[in-house]
Amino acid sequence: MNQNRHALIVAGGSGTRMGSEIPKQFIELLGKPIIMHTISAFYNSSPSPNIVLVLPQNEHLRWSELCKVHSFHVPHSLISGGETRFHSVKNGLASIEGDGLVAIHDGVRPLASKNLIEKCFVEALKNGNAIPAIKPHETIRLGTHTQSRVENRELCWLVQTPQVFKLAEIKSCYNTNYNSSFTDDASVAEWQGKEIFIVDGEKENIKITTPLDMIIATAIMGSGGITTR
Amino acid sequence: MNQNRHALIVAGGSGTRMGSEIPKQFIELLGKPIIMHTISAFYNSSPSPNIVLVLPQNEHLRWSELCKVHSFHVPHSLISGGETRFHSVKNGLASIEGDGLVAIHDGVRPLASKNLIEKCFVEALKNGNAIPAIKPHETIRLGTHTQSRVENRELCWLVQTPQVFKLAEIKSCYNTNYNSSFTDDASVAEWQGKEIFIVDGEKENIKITTPLDMIIATAIMGSGGITTR
Repeated sequence: MNQNRHALIVAGGSGTRMGSEIPKQFIELLGKPIIMHTISAFYNSSPSPNIVLVLPQNEHLRWSELCKVHSFHVPHSLISGGETRFHSVKNGLASIEGDGLVAIHDGVRPLASKNLIEKCFVEALKNGNAIPAIKPHETIRLGTHTQSRVENRELCWLVQTPQVFKLAEIKSCYNTNYNSSFTDDASVAEWQGKEIFIVDGEKENIKITTPLDMIIATAIMGSGGITTR
Repeated sequence: MNQNRHALIVAGGSGTRMGSEIPKQFIELLGKPIIMHTISAFYNSSPSPNIVLVLPQNEHLRWSELCKVHSFHVPHSLISGGETRFHSVKNGLASIEGDGLVAIHDGVRPLASKNLIEKCFVEALKNGNAIPAIKPHETIRLGTHTQSRVENRELCWLVQTPQVFKLAEIKSCYNTNYNSSFTDDASVAEWQGKEIFIVDGEKENIKITTPLDMIIATAIMGSGGITTR
């Protein structure tokens, strides 16, 4: 266990968009709950970080049962989530002591590669933070159905996780009130005046939110995960 | 054949990003060149449009051979492409006579559904034009690796095709010089002062540009194409 690298994996989702009774982080992907793939991805990165998992309080029992059923023994601590992703991250951060870097990651992004995780840690050490993002292949418009304008897609980024920060710095950034514009951790840090550093993400590193995403994730895992950007 | 509906399918790509010798529109998806799936999607929409295919001049012979090999008999006319997508569309539009509506579509988007194609035609008849687009699930940033700011993702659209316009109007819009900001047809129309109308697209309607996209497209087709937004 590396005391200078922490991974905070946030899985508060209720699974509504999946049309499923099971919260999406527990849906099985190639025979194993999505969240186990995600935790293993961090455990297998080098050096292996200290892993903190944030789950809603009422899912803790289900999680410990799933760990037994799947003989899942990757060491991690378990923290209760809050009302929104923001509150869950805040709870998770409060539980981590010491210093070093923390990677904050969506529980339903099981396809983050070892290479991407390590790159984000390395770049955050250099620049203070690092978040992965990819350029869209599509034309981008900003606006509404009836009024919009084309945006320069060369300047547009689709943001992913893990988002890596200095632990003390991101803790201090989260010491604020919730704001609905906080859709990720970089937006909280930006709100607090930090400059954000982007590293090139991976197209495979999808967030699983719909049944279509399950089909895509299964296909990518089955293919051995070709990396294309 | 419906004289009031035209489909202009543009396939000028060289396939560089696919790491393949074969232009990407000819790569086989479930046993058939991608472009044949695309043409069939329009042919199967109702009422079936007049189909115009734009291919680089030096691929016309290969195309007629592929049509023989695959017993592909969907009626369409074949036009030579130009230097860029803009020039290819311009050539294609010049070949279409009469009036009505034209759907301009990327040859490498074989998964546009019958429903989406029909909706774009219907909405364009009402509003003058219609382009499909989807909201990203990701946080969006605008800027560079080292300097960027978060954008309101509620206002952000990832634009797809088919983009449907009144034939006379889009012909007139294309009567301009090429500009590198023209990444789709709506950006050309916007440049000429037109307001653009967005309809909700489909996440499945991907543009195949990388080997990963082939894996995803194969998985979606194999699954029967669940529609999720």
